[in-house]
Amino acid sequence: MQIAKVRGTVVSTQKDPTLRGAKLLLLQFVDETGQLLPKYEVAADTSVGAGLDEWVLVSRGSAARQVSGSEHRPIDAMVVGIIDTVSVDNQLLYSKKDQYRT
Amino acid sequence: MQIAKVRGTVVSTQKDPTLRGAKLLLLQFVDETGQLLPKYEVAADTSVGAGLDEWVLVSRGSAARQVSGSEHRPIDAMVVGIIDTVSVDNQLLYSKKDQYRT
Amino acid sequence: MQIAKVRGTVVSTQKDPTLRGAKLLLLQFVDETGQLLPKYEVAADTSVGAGLDEWVLVSRGSAARQVSGSEHRPIDAMVVGIIDTVSVDNQLLYSKKDQYRT
Amino acid sequence: MQIAKVRGTVVSTQKDPTLRGAKLLLLQFVDETGQLLPKYEVAADTSVGAGLDEWVLVSRGSAARQVSGSEHRPIDAMVVGIIDTVSVDNQLLYSKKDQYRT
Amino acid sequence: MQIAKVRGTVVSTQKDPTLRGAKLLLLQFVDETGQLLPKYEVAADTSVGAGLDEWVLVSRGSAARQVSGSEHRPIDAMVVGIIDTVSVDNQLLYSKKDQYRT
Repeated sequence: MQIAKVRGTVVSTQKDPTLRGAKLLLLQFVDETGQLLPKYEVAADTSVGAGLDEWVLVSRGSAARQVSGSEHRPIDAMVVGIIDTVSVDNQLLYSKKDQYRT
Repeated sequence: MQIAKVRGTVVSTQKDPTLRGAKLLLLQFVDETGQLLPKYEVAADTSVGAGLDEWVLVSRGSAARQVSGSEHRPIDAMVVGIIDTVSVDNQLLYSKKDQYRT
Repeated sequence: MQIAKVRGTVVSTQKDPTLRGAKLLLLQFVDETGQLLPKYEVAADTSVGAGLDEWVLVSRGSAARQVSGSEHRPIDAMVVGIIDTVSVDNQLLYSKKDQYRT
Repeated sequence: MQIAKVRGTVVSTQKDPTLRGAKLLLLQFVDETGQLLPKYEVAADTSVGAGLDEWVLVSRGSAARQVSGSEHRPIDAMVVGIIDTVSVDNQLLYSKKDQYRT
Repeated sequence: MQIAKVRGTVVSTQKDPTLRGAKLLLLQFVDETGQLLPKYEVAADTSVGAGLDEWVLVSRGSAARQVSGSEHRPIDAMVVGIIDTVSVDNQLLYSKKDQYRT
């Protein structure tokens, strides 16, 4: 999985019918030092409810369809968790509570 | 999923029989600031009907086959929606209606 | 899918038994302006019959196994069509008939 | 599969329910000379029990779900082994026992 | 599929039980001119028996599990053939017999 920051939303009304009801978030990937990377992904969020600026865990490929209700949706990226903390070498790199960022 | 702009079409008559009837669009990827990237994909459009210059949402990998009727087609990229708006940090990056582009 | 040019062939006799009979082509990817990219792929061609220098459409990942007869072959790239034309912004980028190349 | 070093952990409480109980490790990829690459992955470790600084083998894509108990989890990267040795040209590049690193 | 050279082996005893008996080879990718690329992969070899320095064909993703006996193994890269020859523009780029390399 990858770590990404929620940067915005994508709206599409003329779409595959099975995508109705699936919120589409614009995510920007974060590297292992916490810096934003020039790489983004549009991911569905059907069960977690992530908000703007939150760090999330995103699954891609066929894993994205393993979330209940999305087994037959043409979705290749899915938010599967809101991140509380990221630790590297036992040091806190990120903490949602304190918005702690080295 | 990725955001891409419809740049053209690809025609192939000598092809796998299951691909008959699947329109093939030449898409160019767009980055999170709305700039065209030097990266393209040929995607099938079997249900959305996207036109030239429209911004679309494209699913890749096995997700591309989850669109009804394509379950057994050798397709690895599919247009799954025409994009109405893209917002970043609550700012409108793109809006189909006004062809609004920062 | 990607657009590629057939550049050669790969022969392997000591291989997984299910690969017997599958012609293996060496493809080089083409970018959206028609230039060859320093990136290649070995793809099976079990149903199209592409020849040297032809532009082809190649599907990768599990899509490659959706071609009839290859469902259980360890193949991750398959030629699924010979390209007749590629148009960008309503301009002909490539045409097999006239070997037209901007 | 890829070789990576365990660099830390990721904690997420608000997540897809099927991810409960799956430890999430922050891995950094290692190149063929044993150097750390500026590339990381968050992988689940549900059966191996890798520790900080250990070199591990990581499987990605649908392979990650082939570990018993994870068949229907939205996981796209899984630790599938702790590495004892890596040899290149019959020379030991890495050995867990002696923490031998050329 | 990709062309790679067998450069070494990876040993892991503490691993997913289904990986027992699967030889793990360290492969380095080769580009279309036959040069080694700074990119490697750890692939299983359960049916071909490739040796050090041999050029092999490697399948990745779910294709890797299509080799008999590996359907439910968490393997995402598999050696599926030892390469005899690679020809580009009807010229021999590589031949196993003569170890011919332009």
